[in-house]
Amino acid sequence: MQNVQEYLSKNKDRFIEELIELLKIPSISADSAFSQDVIDTAEAIKSALERAGCDTVEICETNGYPIVYGEKIINSNLPTVLVYGHYDVQPPDPMDLWNSPPFEPEIRKTETHPEGAIYARGACDDKGQMYMHVKAFEFMVKTQQLPCNVKFMIEGEEEVGSKNLGEFVALNKEKLANDVILISDTGMIANDIPSITTGLRGLSYVEVEVTGPNRDLHSGLYGGAVANPNNILAKMIASLHDENNHITIPGFYDKVEELSKEERNQMAEAPFSLERYKKALDINDVHGEEGYLTNERNAIRPTLDVNGMWGGYTGEGAKTVIPSKAFAKISMRLVPNQDWQEITELFQKHFESIAPKSVTVKVKPHHGGQGYVTPIDTVAYQAASKAYETTFGKTPIPQRSGGSIPIVSLFERELESKTILMGFGLDSDAIHSPNEHFGVWNYLKGIETIPYFYQYFTEMSSS
Amino acid sequence: MQNVQEYLSKNKDRFIEELIELLKIPSISADSAFSQDVIDTAEAIKSALERAGCDTVEICETNGYPIVYGEKIINSNLPTVLVYGHYDVQPPDPMDLWNSPPFEPEIRKTETHPEGAIYARGACDDKGQMYMHVKAFEFMVKTQQLPCNVKFMIEGEEEVGSKNLGEFVALNKEKLANDVILISDTGMIANDIPSITTGLRGLSYVEVEVTGPNRDLHSGLYGGAVANPNNILAKMIASLHDENNHITIPGFYDKVEELSKEERNQMAEAPFSLERYKKALDINDVHGEEGYLTNERNAIRPTLDVNGMWGGYTGEGAKTVIPSKAFAKISMRLVPNQDWQEITELFQKHFESIAPKSVTVKVKPHHGGQGYVTPIDTVAYQAASKAYETTFGKTPIPQRSGGSIPIVSLFERELESKTILMGFGLDSDAIHSPNEHFGVWNYLKGIETIPYFYQYFTEMSSS
Repeated sequence: MQNVQEYLSKNKDRFIEELIELLKIPSISADSAFSQDVIDTAEAIKSALERAGCDTVEICETNGYPIVYGEKIINSNLPTVLVYGHYDVQPPDPMDLWNSPPFEPEIRKTETHPEGAIYARGACDDKGQMYMHVKAFEFMVKTQQLPCNVKFMIEGEEEVGSKNLGEFVALNKEKLANDVILISDTGMIANDIPSITTGLRGLSYVEVEVTGPNRDLHSGLYGGAVANPNNILAKMIASLHDENNHITIPGFYDKVEELSKEERNQMAEAPFSLERYKKALDINDVHGEEGYLTNERNAIRPTLDVNGMWGGYTGEGAKTVIPSKAFAKISMRLVPNQDWQEITELFQKHFESIAPKSVTVKVKPHHGGQGYVTPIDTVAYQAASKAYETTFGKTPIPQRSGGSIPIVSLFERELESKTILMGFGLDSDAIHSPNEHFGVWNYLKGIETIPYFYQYFTEMSSS
Repeated sequence: MQNVQEYLSKNKDRFIEELIELLKIPSISADSAFSQDVIDTAEAIKSALERAGCDTVEICETNGYPIVYGEKIINSNLPTVLVYGHYDVQPPDPMDLWNSPPFEPEIRKTETHPEGAIYARGACDDKGQMYMHVKAFEFMVKTQQLPCNVKFMIEGEEEVGSKNLGEFVALNKEKLANDVILISDTGMIANDIPSITTGLRGLSYVEVEVTGPNRDLHSGLYGGAVANPNNILAKMIASLHDENNHITIPGFYDKVEELSKEERNQMAEAPFSLERYKKALDINDVHGEEGYLTNERNAIRPTLDVNGMWGGYTGEGAKTVIPSKAFAKISMRLVPNQDWQEITELFQKHFESIAPKSVTVKVKPHHGGQGYVTPIDTVAYQAASKAYETTFGKTPIPQRSGGSIPIVSLFERELESKTILMGFGLDSDAIHSPNEHFGVWNYLKGIETIPYFYQYFTEMSSS
């Protein structure tokens, strides 16, 4: 690749400006109040791909939010890279914890990001990382250096479980045919420690509803005599972990892949400071499954977290009420070999079985996806590794991530191709949290590195 | 008392109209957004007392909402009845469960209330029951039958713990001097089974905050490795009851008064159908402390209920987050001899002690009050009993209530007089719940019965 640096320094202000414009649209897929914004974002992606040099771009309707598809086919004998990303974002709340409005992007310098970071919901997950690919593609096209065919598939429902992507992929295998799928929706260890994500956790997300009396009751007149859904829900949730923080759902661990001593030792070599970790989160102690290290607990072990919980009076002051209902949103992160549908059923069966006779329980599965592990001996992985070496001057570390990108295993099944996860964000970028941000350096480094992947992947594939 | 019936039938439409006007003002003391409405309600009570025949009425400022004081002293040698009530109401939420807007009163007929019930927040608790006294007083004055002196003390902070009433009473012992305190802020067993409340539970209301990481975290990247405040709070709440639904706070039961076999047998004689109770609440089973009957669990035993609980994402759809904080509002109903301040301290000490090192916990006491038991051998109780006999044709049953009117024990301490609790509402009136209502029959029956209490109390006191 020639003149990457030159092109970058000439265009970086524009690259940042374009991303900032994209970040101003509140494309929150989980909240129907923002549906028009989500659709507007799809339109913005379409024109961005056209400007960048795609030959054809279309907005593909689904039963939910549309999928933007674009391509540039230069030679059917050359390999084809399919870039996947998403243009929807997580809800921004709690709003009051943001230092600047989530949809009014602001660049601020930090210790980790001396060259500045863009603060906005979606800055890193995934608008920023997705847009790196659009700009890297623009560079290759404008400088006549595009070495292979490219296809873009950018969806708008990743944050709500990619509800309609599966059907779209199944119906468009021909159109989506590729030699490798390239995704930037994960992170790396540090700006001076590049890493490639080789494992992802699966996910099962459910919502539970506990109903007691048919109406809210006065806690004085009824307290002590009637089941309080808040107390019952708390007891039921509490019982889902034992004293060693093992999950108590029967059969939950049956298919969990146990890593070998060697693999665990290898993982332990990744640089990690528990002290810095605790300091960054301002906690006195970590908390997790007995017998595993922090880096294992959040990567190779399944979890059960209550993401939301509510019941009764949550307003100002005091209200002496026994609520009729209490609710919780519960997600389980799964490891390879755990089937998310099977786990969802196990959860449902177990949760219903532990409900006392004094309440009724409803379990509503939200969505889910399988875990995934990429082999590191493939051409694609080697090409990615070499690309990082070229731009970072270091061999990237293969790393298991605790996050989930359910569609990766879907792609492998439907399109029979492997996925490479080239993430340029950091764990400290606060994705899904208030003050999400993405380092300007990381954004530009991504745009610089991606073209080398195209080059090496094309070269290595032909040889 | 002469012509009570006649006066009632002549004025009942106006009595209902006046109450409906009062119910239209949203005097929600727990929510500062309604402070002007609370103050407007105090003004409305003032003019109501003036119109009814008080010689002097004043709005007494406090550090919170004002207390309306009115009096009619006809002869210092005659006994004095002090009427206490409150003009503030509970918050109406959840709004969506109301069949008619909480502050747009509507009269609807029901099985229990064939003559119609007034649906509105505060209809029974306590605007409706308080206003019975104003109208009963009006009757006695207008028909020249007032047999003794009357004082009214109507406050606006009962639903938030009567924060400023204690100081007011302590500073105005002279002004408030009386021979008996009369309150209608409780219920009776049924329209054909009159009862007088002889026991009340105390209350300790606290709010707890559990803090984990310093910001919301992505449940994929951190899940399994960091304490989730939702899960931790659930575990802590669950641990507050053992498998027999005994409260586990050390020392909690130390001072609990155990009733004798006789007393419990006497209680068991009060008509009660467990089947009807479960049917009314639409529950398959009751739930409470091992070894006690439903009627005991909600009257003579202390409780711990989570009135509100919240943390993380509670909006539409799914958000994979580990929240930084989780909260709960917890109230404990106490029985005579349990000191609410001591119990609050025991709770705080215990709750902090069970917090794992991975989180920090804050316990904020909201308010509280002592329990109370009225003797049934007093002149006041006998007078009340005879009044019910006169208008219901039946001797009322002495009954322990699970509710709390913290100021009753305060009155006894500061004013050295006993309180009579003449309640005309029903447990099914849904106070503190959506669709709170008050039977028109009950409202008028109260206005009819109260004057007889004045008559008999005055006669019995002089003899």
